[in-house]
Amino acid sequence: MVETSTKPRRRGGGGRAARIAVQQATTGNEAVHGGMQGGRYKPLSQRDMENIHSAALTVLERTGVSDHFPELLDLVLPKGAVLNEHGRLCFPRALVEDLLSVAAKEFYVFARGEREGKDDMHCTAESVYFANSGTAVTTFDYETRSYRPSTLRDVYDFTRLVDQLENIHMLGDTVLATDVTDDFAHDMNTVYAMLAGSQKPACLTFRDRSHIPHAIRMFDLASGGEGSFMKKPSVIFGGCPMVSPLRIGRENMELLIDTAKLGLTVDLAVPPQAGATAPATLAGTLVQTVAETLACVAIVNLITPGCPVCFAAWPFITDLRSGSFTGGSGEQALIGAAAVQMGNFYGLPTSVGAGMTDAKVPDAQYGLEKALTFSLAAHAGANRLCEFGGMIGSLMGCSFESMVIDDEAGGMILRTLRGIEVSDETMAVDVIHKCALDPGHFLGNSHTLTYMNTEFVYPQLMDRERTDTWENEGKTDLLERARDKANTILDSHFPNYFGAADAEVRAEFPIIMSEEEMARRG
Amino acid sequence: MVETSTKPRRRGGGGRAARIAVQQATTGNEAVHGGMQGGRYKPLSQRDMENIHSAALTVLERTGVSDHFPELLDLVLPKGAVLNEHGRLCFPRALVEDLLSVAAKEFYVFARGEREGKDDMHCTAESVYFANSGTAVTTFDYETRSYRPSTLRDVYDFTRLVDQLENIHMLGDTVLATDVTDDFAHDMNTVYAMLAGSQKPACLTFRDRSHIPHAIRMFDLASGGEGSFMKKPSVIFGGCPMVSPLRIGRENMELLIDTAKLGLTVDLAVPPQAGATAPATLAGTLVQTVAETLACVAIVNLITPGCPVCFAAWPFITDLRSGSFTGGSGEQALIGAAAVQMGNFYGLPTSVGAGMTDAKVPDAQYGLEKALTFSLAAHAGANRLCEFGGMIGSLMGCSFESMVIDDEAGGMILRTLRGIEVSDETMAVDVIHKCALDPGHFLGNSHTLTYMNTEFVYPQLMDRERTDTWENEGKTDLLERARDKANTILDSHFPNYFGAADAEVRAEFPIIMSEEEMARRG
Repeated sequence: MVETSTKPRRRGGGGRAARIAVQQATTGNEAVHGGMQGGRYKPLSQRDMENIHSAALTVLERTGVSDHFPELLDLVLPKGAVLNEHGRLCFPRALVEDLLSVAAKEFYVFARGEREGKDDMHCTAESVYFANSGTAVTTFDYETRSYRPSTLRDVYDFTRLVDQLENIHMLGDTVLATDVTDDFAHDMNTVYAMLAGSQKPACLTFRDRSHIPHAIRMFDLASGGEGSFMKKPSVIFGGCPMVSPLRIGRENMELLIDTAKLGLTVDLAVPPQAGATAPATLAGTLVQTVAETLACVAIVNLITPGCPVCFAAWPFITDLRSGSFTGGSGEQALIGAAAVQMGNFYGLPTSVGAGMTDAKVPDAQYGLEKALTFSLAAHAGANRLCEFGGMIGSLMGCSFESMVIDDEAGGMILRTLRGIEVSDETMAVDVIHKCALDPGHFLGNSHTLTYMNTEFVYPQLMDRERTDTWENEGKTDLLERARDKANTILDSHFPNYFGAADAEVRAEFPIIMSEEEMARRG
Repeated sequence: MVETSTKPRRRGGGGRAARIAVQQATTGNEAVHGGMQGGRYKPLSQRDMENIHSAALTVLERTGVSDHFPELLDLVLPKGAVLNEHGRLCFPRALVEDLLSVAAKEFYVFARGEREGKDDMHCTAESVYFANSGTAVTTFDYETRSYRPSTLRDVYDFTRLVDQLENIHMLGDTVLATDVTDDFAHDMNTVYAMLAGSQKPACLTFRDRSHIPHAIRMFDLASGGEGSFMKKPSVIFGGCPMVSPLRIGRENMELLIDTAKLGLTVDLAVPPQAGATAPATLAGTLVQTVAETLACVAIVNLITPGCPVCFAAWPFITDLRSGSFTGGSGEQALIGAAAVQMGNFYGLPTSVGAGMTDAKVPDAQYGLEKALTFSLAAHAGANRLCEFGGMIGSLMGCSFESMVIDDEAGGMILRTLRGIEVSDETMAVDVIHKCALDPGHFLGNSHTLTYMNTEFVYPQLMDRERTDTWENEGKTDLLERARDKANTILDSHFPNYFGAADAEVRAEFPIIMSEEEMARRG
């Protein structure tokens, strides 16, 4: 429809004015930041939400959860939870409503060192952050276009890469250190690699409840010594305390219990799969996910009223042709956003799995699935889009190139979240009047110069060149450009943020990577 | 965060039940269709919209538009438009408000032949359709990863490809026939190639007002003979009657005048570029775009009150580092959605440019930019997402592979638009109860079998295989798979929907492609 004659200009006119504009445009990131406000996309109506809430309460009251254990029952039965005729642990409606009224509406996760203050996360009221997560068992290898088992070194490499990527706000254990088989060594070395690699806020999981006090000791060493972590928690942790449909996962429920007893933020994820471990209807899966998540919220608040817990309803989709999990579908984007909206309905801090593309290589499918799930989850107002950076192959792998790509995507998504500021100054009726009369364009106008760096996110890797320039410069695709950027960072940025405390850490813990190894490419 | 132990299953359990599910899952498209309802994403507040509306009226009243011509003035000055002290054509607030109250709130574009009824478009009240458009001057060549001048044959090839792609609802002149230099021959052969290639509803443009009656003659021949087109218009047409900032583009305004006089739907596009031909602030660009679009709406309604006209506010973004147009940015997705919301504020039929990626090859950037602009425009409730299929390289090119990719993306986007049906039946509280108790999964349950084909869109090209399967099957990316699908269609589908009327068309018009040429790969 856009006619050739009025085709958008590839290069603006405006002569000197245009050149001034070009010189003054920066590639910095003045336009966006973590914590921007979502919530302008509402897939569910108010009535839908009330109906889903009511149905979830019925499930909690009538069906309840199985696979409980004595320690848990001792904590919750005296306070109003009950066992039904099938011996399942149930939560009466009034109890759940009461607990929701005392549940924490917010939590902070603090950044450390020089990042403290400026990169802290405040999860509340539809503030949006991009978080890593995933514990993939493989890492994508660019050269062979294949996957290899992920390692402890990868944990450090992914973390130090993210340390340099502005739009990924929270570290996560993106990959498993499959080369560390001892559970305690695995967990302590994962924590070490992450805290050494970046001072951004972090989320992770542990294999056993007994590891928590040791991890807190290491968190203390990373943030200034004894007691410093409890004052300003820089890491949240948890797991999957529910195994769908409506069964308790004991090890992760034990983590939840101990975390709640400490009064620390309880992180979790509740991922039933529509059509496999939950109903095939999206509404049914939503009801079950909300019920399972509310069960966790209820247990936490029965243990420690008001202890922060994440409403982490992560409904997943099954491709019923094969029974496979699919993370990048339209259904996934939609139901994830709806789950976030349910969390906001309760006023609880939320997270959701978004960015779980099924593509095996960062191609057009990768981009389509990532952007669709990112945009709907962010605009629904998820406090944390987990699985944000680098995840690929339906959560089976993580990729350095993808991490860099997702960071650029993050800037774009944040810009859309920021929305449009409407004021007399920005509507610029007088500027329009003046420029329309003379000179007939806006390049170089002082209004343009004032806003050019704050109104736009300027990407580094998204190609905006003329076609002939692109052809002359090697016809690269985004994957190739991302590879170059990832390599540049990985070849030069070898932090160890434990600093002076590193020796103490090594004395107390079975740290595997030597300082020497950490200081060069793995 | 998702622990290995509870990692989503790659292959579902359930044995025989699962196999039944697999056998019964179809690859058909029962879950989605064109015309699904958008409007759940609202980037602007009510107050923002009122302020933008008021500012746009100020621009129309005070600044007005230049480059008018006597014929136009004769039509609009007697009816209330005025010339201001600068000789610019202005529209008083009350006049615009009055015209908005009589403006058409809907229009239909009909499909022809066997598609009639089922593939008609009804553009009104946030119904969403995916439309082609673009008039690119080059076509992407897969083999050389390069661009070549587009041809008349490409017009036919893109059209017959789209004829087989379910999620692209409207044909458009995606590429220019650069090999046809005579204006009349160009326009008539473009119309011929499109109407021969598919019976879907179509939108296009003409190079001169004098071509309209000839085109209508050809439309008649395509849809059953004399007078048939005016009864059920299957094509809408127009151009860019505004050249930003606030100048009239005469040739396209002449098209508008003649179309309005015929009482046919006036299609158009108003694409000012933020920071170049409009203010750098998104709010300012929005004000100017709304003013320019309302000027067109006003003129149409001054000529023929109630004549349908598309609120086609297509604000574009400039990368102020270079002055280049950029079509795939977050800013583009955001401002496009906001422009749609303004059209819905007026209750007018809307269109927007969405899908204008800056990528030069269908890579991860392509996917990210497409999905972001698609999803926000669709959820804002655009009647037509124009530039939907195949457009690449900032509208400089079109690609067969991309067309196939965008069709798959379309299915995903439509599924998110459809939303979640919440009822007692879909919330499935009893099914959850029963399956949680026994057998502990939902595979093979009658509720699952009932919904598996209507609840999900099953993609053909989006890879959801296991990683090892993908590796064993050649490690393809989406571009390669799309290439295969495009070739399969292009090698076998050679329609000529003029049918018996073809001889008559060839007798009356200078048709370039022979029947023989059309029946084999170009």
